[in-house]
Amino acid sequence: MRTEISSLGEFGLIDHLTRNNETANAGTLLSVGDDAAVIDQFGRQCVISTDMLVEGIHFDLMYTPLKHLGYKAVAVNLSDIYAMMATPTHITVSIALSNKVSVEALEEFYEGIYAACERYGVDLVGGDTTSSRSGLVISITAIGEVAPDKYVTRSGARPNDLICVTGDLGAAYLGLQLLEREKKIFLENPGVQPDLQQQAYLVGRILKPEPRMDVVEWLRENNIMPTSMIDVSDGLSSELLHLCNKSDTGCVLHEDKIPAHEETRAMAMQFGLSVTTCALSGGEDYELLFTIGQEHYERISQYAHVSVIGYMTEKDQGRYLVTKSGGKHPLTAQGWNAFDQ
Amino acid sequence: MRTEISSLGEFGLIDHLTRNNETANAGTLLSVGDDAAVIDQFGRQCVISTDMLVEGIHFDLMYTPLKHLGYKAVAVNLSDIYAMMATPTHITVSIALSNKVSVEALEEFYEGIYAACERYGVDLVGGDTTSSRSGLVISITAIGEVAPDKYVTRSGARPNDLICVTGDLGAAYLGLQLLEREKKIFLENPGVQPDLQQQAYLVGRILKPEPRMDVVEWLRENNIMPTSMIDVSDGLSSELLHLCNKSDTGCVLHEDKIPAHEETRAMAMQFGLSVTTCALSGGEDYELLFTIGQEHYERISQYAHVSVIGYMTEKDQGRYLVTKSGGKHPLTAQGWNAFDQ
Repeated sequence: MRTEISSLGEFGLIDHLTRNNETANAGTLLSVGDDAAVIDQFGRQCVISTDMLVEGIHFDLMYTPLKHLGYKAVAVNLSDIYAMMATPTHITVSIALSNKVSVEALEEFYEGIYAACERYGVDLVGGDTTSSRSGLVISITAIGEVAPDKYVTRSGARPNDLICVTGDLGAAYLGLQLLEREKKIFLENPGVQPDLQQQAYLVGRILKPEPRMDVVEWLRENNIMPTSMIDVSDGLSSELLHLCNKSDTGCVLHEDKIPAHEETRAMAMQFGLSVTTCALSGGEDYELLFTIGQEHYERISQYAHVSVIGYMTEKDQGRYLVTKSGGKHPLTAQGWNAFDQ
Repeated sequence: MRTEISSLGEFGLIDHLTRNNETANAGTLLSVGDDAAVIDQFGRQCVISTDMLVEGIHFDLMYTPLKHLGYKAVAVNLSDIYAMMATPTHITVSIALSNKVSVEALEEFYEGIYAACERYGVDLVGGDTTSSRSGLVISITAIGEVAPDKYVTRSGARPNDLICVTGDLGAAYLGLQLLEREKKIFLENPGVQPDLQQQAYLVGRILKPEPRMDVVEWLRENNIMPTSMIDVSDGLSSELLHLCNKSDTGCVLHEDKIPAHEETRAMAMQFGLSVTTCALSGGEDYELLFTIGQEHYERISQYAHVSVIGYMTEKDQGRYLVTKSGGKHPLTAQGWNAFDQ
């Protein structure tokens, strides 16, 4: 018997492989299935997350400067730690690379790693460097800490909780489309130098995402404890459905509340894309999606970095997007699937 | 300017890339440059290690059963945690794989992962699964714990300390030679089925290494605190030089004390290799190499799983191998170099 991996998809595959995973250590508070795992270490809680980035799948070295790649590889891991409302403290970095890569190129990559470490107060404490017959593979593990039982999972949302998202969505996806378009033009006419200065915001969002440390700190300072949280790596739609599935709720999402940058709107129009589709299915925004009790509405609505975009409902009420025209459409996951390529 | 990675070698490269690595967190007790990092978490100490295995570099799927590969990938990481005298508690597993791999094949791989987790009382708590355009890449991070300041680094050996090694050496290297020979025969005559039953010990040593949890527990029970420790992944010679370099000592290693299994001796003869060379430069034995004070000589010499193979000296006395015939040869690192291929 042979089952194709693509028939299960990324999330199905992880569920399948870990379905018999029994944890033996009493200190394992949260295992596979959230943004990060949580381990109790004699009262303090340690949060662990890991991500792998593969050349040709997650990045294209033709338009990704190595320094940005190093920075982003760290940033996306830290984003998972912040999505637990924890504080990252340490990372390990493993890379497999071909002999074609020079020491100078690798130094640039590490400059990016160190820049992200410095920005977020994290220490690089270990790793592995080995050779690869093909492209560059980067694997980073991030470790963080959180006060006992102050971490936030994907499973605590309740009906009537407000759905909130940080920053704006869809920009990273359009940044990627821009880079892909310029790459195509360059390959066809090597004389033409791309001018992406005008699109610094969109390109910056795909090449150098920043995890939302600021929002996590603001929530803590304001004693707002989200009931559930996840980071937006695969698109708003897919992430919101994760929260609903894990929390056993339905949801209503208001299209007119989904935050988008003005450059995102302008570029979506240029590409003939709906800005809502870019937000729902684009991915790589690395914003935080979370739910809070209604009692926090006033406080949160005054905070510029967060938008309230809907509310959770009872599970049997379904999961819907209410469009600007008032239509009601079932939400479907169209997030990026690593095995669809 | 372009510097080839091969001009630095694996260790040189890591040193080079981490030379400006400053640690910001007071809790970072030990960073890059040992078997694992050590983080202080409010009194308890957390030990972290990571390893990457790449198809075509570290393993050949033609003769590596996937279940064994999963088991070994975990085992080699736990070996690094034991080499700190710590106890592994958790792992994360990230893999990049091509669509050619079936779900059933991946299940076999995870069976091996879970078998190792169960054997060593470790929980799998997270990971990442993604696609790869080429071969299989596995990245595992292991986390362990140790009582405050009871971890053992590479840098504490003193002149006159006894040099000890667990189990026997050189078998994994000969096991690999056997598998490579059988592969060649098979490729030339696909009808010939290899019979490796006679060499179960050697083949087992390369395909399914076991980290020395038993020896670490024995040392703890007997209140023997090694002054330095490292696991033997690259060959005795290279590992002993690491201990000397980090501890600022010289050493005398006695060839006639280096432990080898009788099947290792027989197969070395068949291949026309010196069993000492296999032990010094073969690698992948995953035994523990450590130093202890002379006061422990009597106790350790009665323990079947450890051999005393030499002693540390002052740095200016050099690093030597004393051969069976009484000759004195400088020790040189000829360990496996991932970039020499």
